Amino acid sequence: MKITIKDVARISGVSVGTVSKVINGKPVSEKIRSKVIETIHELNYKPNQHARSLITNKSYTIGLIVTNITNPFFGEIVSHIKEDLEQKGYNLLLGISRDQSSEEKVTIENFVSRHVDGLIIVPTRDGEHELEHIYKLRQQKIPFVFITSQYLGIRADCVMSDFTKGSYQLTSHLLDNENKEIYFLTDSKELLLSSKRIDGYRMAYMERGITYKENWIIETLPNFESAYKTTEGIINNQIPDAIMTINDVMAMGVIKCLKDNGIKVPEDVSVAGYDDLLFSSMFDPPLTTVKQPIEEMCKETVDILIKRLQGYDKEFNVHLYPSELIIRESTK
Amino acid sequence: MKITIKDVARISGVSVGTVSKVINGKPVSEKIRSKVIETIHELNYKPNQHARSLITNKSYTIGLIVTNITNPFFGEIVSHIKEDLEQKGYNLLLGISRDQSSEEKVTIENFVSRHVDGLIIVPTRDGEHELEHIYKLRQQKIPFVFITSQYLGIRADCVMSDFTKGSYQLTSHLLDNENKEIYFLTDSKELLLSSKRIDGYRMAYMERGITYKENWIIETLPNFESAYKTTEGIINNQIPDAIMTINDVMAMGVIKCLKDNGIKVPEDVSVAGYDDLLFSSMFDPPLTTVKQPIEEMCKETVDILIKRLQGYDKEFNVHLYPSELIIRESTK
Repeated sequence: MKITIKDVARISGVSVGTVSKVINGKPVSEKIRSKVIETIHELNYKPNQHARSLITNKSYTIGLIVTNITNPFFGEIVSHIKEDLEQKGYNLLLGISRDQSSEEKVTIENFVSRHVDGLIIVPTRDGEHELEHIYKLRQQKIPFVFITSQYLGIRADCVMSDFTKGSYQLTSHLLDNENKEIYFLTDSKELLLSSKRIDGYRMAYMERGITYKENWIIETLPNFESAYKTTEGIINNQIPDAIMTINDVMAMGVIKCLKDNGIKVPEDVSVAGYDDLLFSSMFDPPLTTVKQPIEEMCKETVDILIKRLQGYDKEFNVHLYPSELIIRESTK
Repeated sequence: MKITIKDVARISGVSVGTVSKVINGKPVSEKIRSKVIETIHELNYKPNQHARSLITNKSYTIGLIVTNITNPFFGEIVSHIKEDLEQKGYNLLLGISRDQSSEEKVTIENFVSRHVDGLIIVPTRDGEHELEHIYKLRQQKIPFVFITSQYLGIRADCVMSDFTKGSYQLTSHLLDNENKEIYFLTDSKELLLSSKRIDGYRMAYMERGITYKENWIIETLPNFESAYKTTEGIINNQIPDAIMTINDVMAMGVIKCLKDNGIKVPEDVSVAGYDDLLFSSMFDPPLTTVKQPIEEMCKETVDILIKRLQGYDKEFNVHLYPSELIIRESTK
């Protein structure tokens, strides 16, 4: 037996018109809205998307572009956002930019030709200087929200965590535990997600009156292999007290390189990451890291985008979430 | 300066018509084909997809549906297939079924309405009994290929690894190293990816004349949390010699549960996984596992699908790849 909108209306005790309003994101009272949504879930009612699209001239499809799908951090983002969108009656089109602006551009054009209503974008590492395709979205009045970072060259909604504070907390923890010479493997310093973290790193040093060297901050690609190679370069010259990175996958690369060279973690070198992947507590040794509240961040991203789709036109905001330092055995 | 098809033709030393044939997957000699593809890559030439679609009535888009994007194994599959498709001039639409047939169905319908030329599908765990939407693809003459497993209820191309042999090798390794009582956490026994592996498990026992109990083979969901809970149930009754699983993420759940209960791996209990994730060599202890040749498998999957798109109509085949036993420190 196929569940229809009439069944949802009858069981919710409201009119078909009201159910239609809820499905199509039109304003109704919060009480009625939650009652209708609850009934929709109970009955497992699937509004006919094609019919909705015809009525509303919307595709009820959101494009999500992430940079790198082999880092489980982005797998988690995809998984959360898909779930959040579905609860609001939207489909997901998923794209991968491989952290390259040119691929982001192609993917966005592809999604726009498929009539997405809006976009959620994880910025690429080389995207800051090629924002034409993003400006074009604005001209086409296609709403978009950045997640995890943002391009500084365009005012837009962005949901990210407080990298400066997270990095400050991590560096402080290291400094306060006899790690004075801390190498920091980061992405291009021009990127917000790097520069904010470098700010936090410097703050922790300066606050303690300890000196650091600029050449301890090393730009590299944010993946396993690059972190491994960069670590090889470091230990060829000297063995630092600690190496910190901007994600857990990089920290794994660092640890692997140190182990392969007979250097003990954390006895000889402390290592810390960022993200707190499901796996990170399972590493040998369990990884000290900084946890971003990714579930809440994804929920807010979807909420903001849908508000924008419904015509909300207040000023764009950067929504900054606090991070949490997770101390485990990879740091002494 | 925009690169055009004429530039590609001139530099390859062939006619525009020949370049067009290569781009559109029409037959040309392998030598010419590779020369043209090489030039396309050198010049970073992007054929205008819209124009191609108009001429050929194809969308040059393939839908890929994976079950669970938070398991990095599927992240790797997505990454490889995207790359392989792009090299052949195809776009990727990515879907996630969350291992549920109902979501697979909705995603396929969505993709078909977006005019995908073909589909690559990782089968869901409850899909065997609801194949209507797959039969429909056949009726609509939309080619599809299964990867990592298959539905037995439909004859189709499938690329997978030899689970029976992989599981046999792993079980043999455990039995030959004083692990006599091996629990096996598997997905629903009805599933090909479970039943084949159970065959291998039994073969290894029988070949050695060692007895096992049917209740050592336990059905559970193939994720971290379920593996953790199932392990709790096992150790409440007795401490086995070894626990093996059908993927590395489950093995992590097993190890975590054992550690949380003060049980040492591998001294008290050996633990083995399947897949050999990038992370698996980094675990504490490094994980014994079975590696599927996922890169080659993805390449073959794309090759087969594109052959089908070009009209190849020979009998469907199951392409079985050998697996490799990787022995590390999680097993004694």
